[in-house]
Amino acid sequence: MSHPVLVVGSVALDSVETPFGRADDALGGSGTYFSASASHHTRVQLVGVVGSDYPVDQLQVLASRGVDLAGVERAEGESFRWRGRYRHDLNTAETLETRLGVFSHFRPKIPAQFRRAKYVFLGNIDPRLQLDVLDQVEKPALVGCDTMNFWIESRRPDLLALLKRVDLITLNDAEARQLTEEANLVKAARWILAHGPRTVIIKKGEHGAFMFHADRVFFAPAYPLESVFDPTGAGDSFAGGFMGYLAQTDDLSEANMRRAVVMGSVMGSFVVEGFSVKRLLEITPNDIAARMAEFHRLVTFDATVA
Amino acid sequence: MSHPVLVVGSVALDSVETPFGRADDALGGSGTYFSASASHHTRVQLVGVVGSDYPVDQLQVLASRGVDLAGVERAEGESFRWRGRYRHDLNTAETLETRLGVFSHFRPKIPAQFRRAKYVFLGNIDPRLQLDVLDQVEKPALVGCDTMNFWIESRRPDLLALLKRVDLITLNDAEARQLTEEANLVKAARWILAHGPRTVIIKKGEHGAFMFHADRVFFAPAYPLESVFDPTGAGDSFAGGFMGYLAQTDDLSEANMRRAVVMGSVMGSFVVEGFSVKRLLEITPNDIAARMAEFHRLVTFDATVA
Repeated sequence: MSHPVLVVGSVALDSVETPFGRADDALGGSGTYFSASASHHTRVQLVGVVGSDYPVDQLQVLASRGVDLAGVERAEGESFRWRGRYRHDLNTAETLETRLGVFSHFRPKIPAQFRRAKYVFLGNIDPRLQLDVLDQVEKPALVGCDTMNFWIESRRPDLLALLKRVDLITLNDAEARQLTEEANLVKAARWILAHGPRTVIIKKGEHGAFMFHADRVFFAPAYPLESVFDPTGAGDSFAGGFMGYLAQTDDLSEANMRRAVVMGSVMGSFVVEGFSVKRLLEITPNDIAARMAEFHRLVTFDATVA
Repeated sequence: MSHPVLVVGSVALDSVETPFGRADDALGGSGTYFSASASHHTRVQLVGVVGSDYPVDQLQVLASRGVDLAGVERAEGESFRWRGRYRHDLNTAETLETRLGVFSHFRPKIPAQFRRAKYVFLGNIDPRLQLDVLDQVEKPALVGCDTMNFWIESRRPDLLALLKRVDLITLNDAEARQLTEEANLVKAARWILAHGPRTVIIKKGEHGAFMFHADRVFFAPAYPLESVFDPTGAGDSFAGGFMGYLAQTDDLSEANMRRAVVMGSVMGSFVVEGFSVKRLLEITPNDIAARMAEFHRLVTFDATVA
């Protein structure tokens, strides 16, 4: 049976410059990307905050896709704004400006009707707030979280407390190394698994993603795209595809979690083809199924040697 | 029917320092690594040169594994020596010293009994010499070549002439970008395919390898090893596993070439577990089959979505 997925994350306005163009004050933020991606798979309950200047009518595209915005609070003040630039190789975002605005005082309040969510994703916010969210939800079947270098450095004890309460964490390779002080990703994953989550997903951007459980490892490449337009939101769209697919299928078997990782990679491969959430609003179920099949063709081989 | 593979490459003495130890004047060179790796799959015909100081008795371990050393010339003078160091992350070799010795005057002479080789690999040497080798062999079924930044810069016209005469090239991502002036690897691969080879393999080290044909792409990850001891020779061992497997099976179908790429990754994953060719001399057919199966488990998923 299909379930909704609850996500807590930022709802921001991004201004992005790439070698191929620029976008100003476009829909952005981890909660937004996650929701747009997950909405292809199931209903989404988004919790976040926007400022009084936010073009909330633009969020209607999410609502029309089944994203329940009842948890998106509007606060007096400026919205969270991020301004960044990508150079020729598109690998690293250069942050030109971050203005937290109303996000700096954000205290997530989970609406009563969201509190029984079976699938919960704690986007990349202060681990203290992520813990706060967990105190407000009832017995979810799967809790995933994301984090970043800033929290690993400034909120380590809270982050370690959070790890004990989540089932799954997604983080990128640099963050995994920073958190664990292990250069080797297998060792890093083992360290994290020993500190709480039963599943660790280490994202390597254009180099794909690993999923580690106790004694199993799965790898999905990133799709080799000919034109990457704007890498912003790839990780959040990955998480949205992954969690959205799990919530849709309500199946936590190894086989289905592998498919969910590929679904995350599929959604990440679409979002980078355009600015902001543009591509996520255009693609159809057929596009998704076709790319899933392409991922399969990309890695499939018969191991029966001569 | 199994065929031998002919390889032309360097036979060197490597001194390597890693965070885990050091080795001095150990067997090294692209021809040596290739041969040790390919010898697990088929007979190897090695063409190269060593100096009068080379411990040729140490090459007997290759001979005993079916590597025909009739093409390894002994010249008056010093052997090719490379001295390098890997830092903590093991990703980049820092070259401390390169002494070409007799290699600087190397002119490959293919022994008469090697000239009808059906499978030929031109290791990373001057493209003029690679072309020279092609003039000495009769109608091979598959010619592969490797190259490096130095030749891309200093011998571009010769390298472009070579591309027109090979079936396949293996190069790393940085070399592919340098050769094609395309940052995007899909575009880089397309550029190379338009300049001669019908197959391009782009190696990304710990991030795996792509194989591109006209309209197909295959990706094999590198195996997520917990302990990488010494990355030297991974690329040459990949090439040896790939070409050795193709020569053994004599099957250039898409399915078999995919398996050959994984076999290359398997052999690359072994060689980095020890200094020099040590691990390649220890492993058994069972070890290889087991790791092939692990690669399969690593990437396998069922694309049938709910």
